Amino acid sequence: MNQLVNIEQVQLQCKKTQSAAKLLGVSSEQKKNEILKSMSDLIEKNRLAILEANKIDLERAEQSGLSRAMIDRLTINETTIRQMQQALNQVANLADPLTSSYPEVVQPSGIKVTKKRIPLGVILMIYESRPNVTVEAAALALKSGNGIILRGGKEAFESNQAIAQCWREALIDNEMSADTVNVLNSTDRQLLDQLLKLDQHIEVVIPRGGEGLIRHVVANSHIPVIKHYKGVCHLYVDEMADLNMAIDILINGKTQRPGVCNALEGLVVHQVIAKQFLQQAFQALHLKDVQMFGCAETIEILPSIDKAREEEFLAEFLDLKISCKVVKNIDQAIDFIDQYGSGHTEVIVTDSQQNADKFVNRVDASVVMVNASSRFSDGGELGLGAEIGISTSKIHAYGPMGLESLTSEKFVVRGNGEVRS
Amino acid sequence: MNQLVNIEQVQLQCKKTQSAAKLLGVSSEQKKNEILKSMSDLIEKNRLAILEANKIDLERAEQSGLSRAMIDRLTINETTIRQMQQALNQVANLADPLTSSYPEVVQPSGIKVTKKRIPLGVILMIYESRPNVTVEAAALALKSGNGIILRGGKEAFESNQAIAQCWREALIDNEMSADTVNVLNSTDRQLLDQLLKLDQHIEVVIPRGGEGLIRHVVANSHIPVIKHYKGVCHLYVDEMADLNMAIDILINGKTQRPGVCNALEGLVVHQVIAKQFLQQAFQALHLKDVQMFGCAETIEILPSIDKAREEEFLAEFLDLKISCKVVKNIDQAIDFIDQYGSGHTEVIVTDSQQNADKFVNRVDASVVMVNASSRFSDGGELGLGAEIGISTSKIHAYGPMGLESLTSEKFVVRGNGEVRS
Repeated sequence: MNQLVNIEQVQLQCKKTQSAAKLLGVSSEQKKNEILKSMSDLIEKNRLAILEANKIDLERAEQSGLSRAMIDRLTINETTIRQMQQALNQVANLADPLTSSYPEVVQPSGIKVTKKRIPLGVILMIYESRPNVTVEAAALALKSGNGIILRGGKEAFESNQAIAQCWREALIDNEMSADTVNVLNSTDRQLLDQLLKLDQHIEVVIPRGGEGLIRHVVANSHIPVIKHYKGVCHLYVDEMADLNMAIDILINGKTQRPGVCNALEGLVVHQVIAKQFLQQAFQALHLKDVQMFGCAETIEILPSIDKAREEEFLAEFLDLKISCKVVKNIDQAIDFIDQYGSGHTEVIVTDSQQNADKFVNRVDASVVMVNASSRFSDGGELGLGAEIGISTSKIHAYGPMGLESLTSEKFVVRGNGEVRS
Repeated sequence: MNQLVNIEQVQLQCKKTQSAAKLLGVSSEQKKNEILKSMSDLIEKNRLAILEANKIDLERAEQSGLSRAMIDRLTINETTIRQMQQALNQVANLADPLTSSYPEVVQPSGIKVTKKRIPLGVILMIYESRPNVTVEAAALALKSGNGIILRGGKEAFESNQAIAQCWREALIDNEMSADTVNVLNSTDRQLLDQLLKLDQHIEVVIPRGGEGLIRHVVANSHIPVIKHYKGVCHLYVDEMADLNMAIDILINGKTQRPGVCNALEGLVVHQVIAKQFLQQAFQALHLKDVQMFGCAETIEILPSIDKAREEEFLAEFLDLKISCKVVKNIDQAIDFIDQYGSGHTEVIVTDSQQNADKFVNRVDASVVMVNASSRFSDGGELGLGAEIGISTSKIHAYGPMGLESLTSEKFVVRGNGEVRS
């Protein structure tokens, strides 16, 4: 049951997770993989209990009139169970990020300086209705040597508690502290705000969810926050573009999975090819039921579509909708993206090396792509192995975050009695 | 004159710095070095104006009864002027951090993924009485392609404005926007708090000063903060230590410059060598007028010294004082440092490779040293070329921060029309 817990209790729990994280941080890769393997087995073994708990959450969700999309995210079934197991095995197969080695450089003073990769310590993950995060985020934290405090949404409370029980067993079975993965048993908002002040125990907060939740966390946290507010990704079709390629990339980016943050929300078209391309685009988008919103120049070419207001240019639709803007040249395209993009992913389609380089150098986004779909902006597709989240601020990490983003580096100095003069 | 400025004006200034930073971020290394060179010349040329402005600050400081240490930090003289020029030339000689190259990896989808190093954007530097920061922090920001907003203390107001005038000329002489280096002309506290909310224009805040100022910034900022609260650095003298080496490292760490954050504040001694070492240490420290505070075991050996309370074990003395603790073994030393250290710099003196490795692996500090003085914990000495600050949180940077800490990385993807299936 969702408990009323006071801050002293939670602070004590965080301290315990901090101590547990220290032990985990110096554990072998084998030990960490064994925990992940046990967890996979325990999820299988406790399948029915997890499904039962999820059923309670789903019944409550139906009663409280949660949206279909939210209920989808909340639902656990046999497929989801297998996906959780796959995720655990996948993370176990990733390289341990703490094993990277650094050169040792002798300084003029004689001291030898190198670095060592280390875990962050304790991660606080704040998320909404997806119970799979309780498995996957914790798996990534564990593999990188970090303790984790998981604060899921109240909608997924029972599911998260059932998964938490598996984590406890997996840790204890491997002689590690059950506090290493700490699934909070309260979803109280005020408690969350107090948690966000505990910078002596927690190293970083990663919120995942709606922009409102994330802004609330940023405004109230004394702990560093790694976040992305939204993904407003654009495709710029250059005058030198292969237009068929541009259509493929447009349709894939907009329609393959419209509800995710790397889906396209805006189309920017060079005026020279605007007429031909926009007519082709209109037909292709129309077939996929995508609604277009255009600037004045777009509407001259496509009089049947809606006018794009400032609101549409700024929108993260997460839906079958797209805004369109005709620009005079690549510079204007870059300025437009600068103004309306969210720093997530921006794509150019062009055959001009010069324009591609200009776009890559000047566009300020965590992922800049030439002639490829924005949908590749994902930890797995970019070669990170897995993804704990995305950062659209440039501090610590920028873009999809893999295991290495859950680590830091310390300096290691070896000397022979050197002192400073 | 210190102006009353409203937040709209400051927001406009920040926006201008943001635009200016975009141009700087794509400027050549040569251009950036030319600005630094011009600045060095202009500081020479406007020497008298700077000294005159500093005189006004110093007179006000004397009247308001500022401490001798504060007045020292505030004072500009011919030597300080030359040091500012040297710092500018030194930064110009450092490698441009944006030129680092990354391998390109082909993913199973066919896309080619690489990274590109980029500036952060706009840095907000908040500091107290040292006007040299107005030169040095801006130089590092410029070299790494960042705009900077400098908010110095009211004590140094006139000095900072005189230096700001040099920056404006140096930028304009090189056809760059004068807004690139933005020295605020108000030191109002409320305005600062509003500035800390402008995360749409500012990428990172670096506060330098007393713990009170830094905690205030952390509690009020919506922008990521990179900071260190204090440096409580320890020397652990292991049972396997060369005791003469340990004495040298102790005296250097404690007395060479007691007022800095990498000075030693605590001595931890293995019980087996405690009697011999503490007596040697007492004599050596006594010669340098260092006051010792000891745990019960220390006082058994050195009955004349003061008892260390919790307060002394936690203290960043920044003075000729040191706390002493006798421990049973290296594990207890590591636990003690874990409890009382500040994550800045921790030193072991030992001849045992095994104990050295244990200390390096298990001590949680940004710089861990074996047989070398804590005073080497400095950007210059560690090979970073220069230092903009120190981070004792593990997010983004840990330890002394050089030019690279003022940058981030974006993903660059090149494809041939790949879409996601």
